[in-house]
Order: sequence, then C-alpha cells, then structure tokens
Amino acid sequence: MNRGVVLLSGGLDSTTTLALAMAEGFETYALSFDYGQRQKVELAAARRVAQSLGAREHRIVRIDNDIFGQSALTDDIDIPKGRSVAEIAGGIPVTYVPARNTIFLSYALAWAESLGATDIFIGVNALDYSGYPDCRPEFITAFEKMADLATKTGVEGAHFKIHTPLIAMSKAEIIRQAGELRVDLSLTHSCYDPAPDGRACGLCDSCQLRRKGFSEAGLADPIVYAV
Amino acid sequence: MNRGVVLLSGGLDSTTTLALAMAEGFETYALSFDYGQRQKVELAAARRVAQSLGAREHRIVRIDNDIFGQSALTDDIDIPKGRSVAEIAGGIPVTYVPARNTIFLSYALAWAESLGATDIFIGVNALDYSGYPDCRPEFITAFEKMADLATKTGVEGAHFKIHTPLIAMSKAEIIRQAGELRVDLSLTHSCYDPAPDGRACGLCDSCQLRRKGFSEAGLADPIVYAV
Repeated sequence: MNRGVVLLSGGLDSTTTLALAMAEGFETYALSFDYGQRQKVELAAARRVAQSLGAREHRIVRIDNDIFGQSALTDDIDIPKGRSVAEIAGGIPVTYVPARNTIFLSYALAWAESLGATDIFIGVNALDYSGYPDCRPEFITAFEKMADLATKTGVEGAHFKIHTPLIAMSKAEIIRQAGELRVDLSLTHSCYDPAPDGRACGLCDSCQLRRKGFSEAGLADPIVYAV
Repeated sequence: MNRGVVLLSGGLDSTTTLALAMAEGFETYALSFDYGQRQKVELAAARRVAQSLGAREHRIVRIDNDIFGQSALTDDIDIPKGRSVAEIAGGIPVTYVPARNTIFLSYALAWAESLGATDIFIGVNALDYSGYPDCRPEFITAFEKMADLATKTGVEGAHFKIHTPLIAMSKAEIIRQAGELRVDLSLTHSCYDPAPDGRACGLCDSCQLRRKGFSEAGLADPIVYAV
C-alpha cells in the first residue's frame, strides 16, 4: 500500500483531498500545523476529520509564529468581511502568510522521505491560486523539482509528486466531490475569524466562498454560522 | 542598509558566511534551529557568534524533531568516526537529515519576506555537496526559482537570492577567509558528537574535516578536542 502525506487544515478542501487520496488507495499520513493562527479551532476540525476518514496517522506540528511576520491570520490585522468573489479574487489578500505553503510542503517532504513515501497531497484550487502565489500550479511544479534535488530519495532516482487533485475545481465542484465520497462536511471548519464559541463568522473570504459553493452545488451547508 | 537572513549553525562555515555577509554591508538576521540535534551545544556557539559578530537579531526556531525521521544527528545511530576525507566524500552520509536545508531555507524565506529582504545566506561548500544533496548548487538554484513563485515578493517582480559565498571553497580556504575577516573561530563548534563537557570528539566527519582544514591552512585550531 503506497503511503501519502496529506496536508490537512480541517477545511473543506484539505478534507476532500484526504478523502480523494484514500479513495485512490493511499495509506494516508495527515499533517497539520499550529502556527498561531487565530482560527485555531481548525486544528480540532483536522483531528476530527483525520479520525473520521481513517488516516493512518495525524500529526500537528507547532511552528514558531514570529517567523511568519504580518498576516491577518496571525496578527492584529482586520480580516476582510463581506467581500464579493470578484473582490476576493482581485489580488493577494491580507490573509496571505509569507512562505506558508513552502514551509508546510517542506515539512511534508521531510515526513514523506522518512516514511519512504514520494506522494504528497495538498488541496489548493483555482480560487486559491487567483489570490495566493503559493497555491499556483507553477509553484507546485517548482517545488517538485526542488524536492527531487533536495533529497536522498531524489538523488537515488525517485521523483516526488505533489498531488493537487482540486487544482482545477470550483468550490461547488469540490463540495459535490466530497458528497460523492460521502465525506461528513459537518466536521470541517473554514472560517478565518470564528466566534469565541467556534461558530463560523459567515462573512470572511473563506466563509463567503464556502457559502457560495454550497449554494451553487445546490446543497445545504451542515455547519452553523454566527451571521 | 540591505537586510540579509543568514542561516547560522555556529560552525566554521556558517560563522564565516555571517562575517562575509556583514563585510558586504548587509544588516544581518541570523537564524538557527533547535531540531533535537545531539550536538545541541552548537546553539550556544551560534549565540556567541551572532553576538560577537554583531548580527542585528538572532532567532532560534524550535523544530519538531519527530518529523525528520532517522538520522545519526537526531537518533540513536552511531556517528561515524575516524573516516578519511575520501570516505567522507564517498556518498550520502548517515548524518543526512531528510529535507533539512529545505526546511531551514523555507523558514529563512518566510523571515526574509516579512523583513522586506530578498537576500538569504547559507554556508554550503564543495565538501558538503559531495555528500549532502541539499548542499548542491543545483538545489540552491531550484530553491531560488521556487521562492520567487511562492511569494508575494516574487509575484511583485523581485528576486530572492540565496548567497552561497563558500560554495567553491575548501575547508582550508574557508579558515583562511575567516582569518582575514578576523573572526574568532574559538567561538565556533563543529563536532557532531561532543563530549558531555562540550568538547569536540575529534573523530567524527565534521571534526576530521575541520582539523584537516586547519592543518592545510597552516593555522592552529583554537578549540579543544577530547581526543
């Protein structure tokens, strides 16, 4: 059984990605990060998801928050609320975290190599890469090439593959895909700025995209929103 | 004054690299990692070096040891002793740590971007890259390319430069270079397997290369060896 390392934030996209990796027959090793994000409730979601879907192992790696510098996800910068999809897709958002996916994929690479695995899964998609540079297909390709040169595994002739099964999907398509795989989306958490009781705010970019996705998919979102 | 992030282990090479970055006029931000290495005494050396040379800031980032898998630097695997330079250069050593420099450079990239810097320094050299895949020039080039695609800075048209001023130098040349820059090499630590009192073992690959370097440079090594 092939082993695959899956980056798991506990949101819609990474959860669907984990389900797809398992459907493809991979023994999955889920990897989450505690990097001082204000939406720390997503780590509880990641734990629920990894257990519910049956990941072979789930690790939460703590990352020194200070290193990431200014981002609305880690600092006292206002999270944008009530933006349209066009506004959300119109540039690099303040929720951008410097080199975040580079660090996440680097840890995934280290874990994969120590497991004897060459498959890594990340749930980036078309909506992300209109805004976040480190979600773009050209970034993923460059990371793969670097990974082969960085590692003993690569020197020995094997190739790392960064799987991005959602890369060309809209949010509605991801939600339909999750439905087909019978993923319980009530376990997931997407909000950047949850209420103290953990409920999604309903208005941040991530909530807006999620709600629009469910609406377009013609399905009811099983999570509860504050607004 | 340009800012530069410098990876600093506290050994000969990274110390000389820091001195070179400062001689080039960079305001330096030194970055070290606590990754469960058995040679933890090197972190104390890094602190002494950063202070002595006058780095603007020095950070030690803690990295989850478990993620790195098996390596003689982090696990109960014997550190090779008494090997010749030919033996040391003859393949990937057991002291290889999966994706270590990828993770180190990823953190450096995150810190650089948050500082508004595009210059990163790493003290890899020809002796390293005959053994460690993530010290090779082709790895460094691939990382630079990936960094430009990963970041807001890159999207905005700037380029990250990973400086490797020692890349073509022998150990003896590095030691001479440090001498010319009046670096106090008694502050540095190179040994992979120090004695409980912190003294260098004198026999591991790192000690062997250091001793041979001083001998070839015709200089006395100011540190004390157990053997």
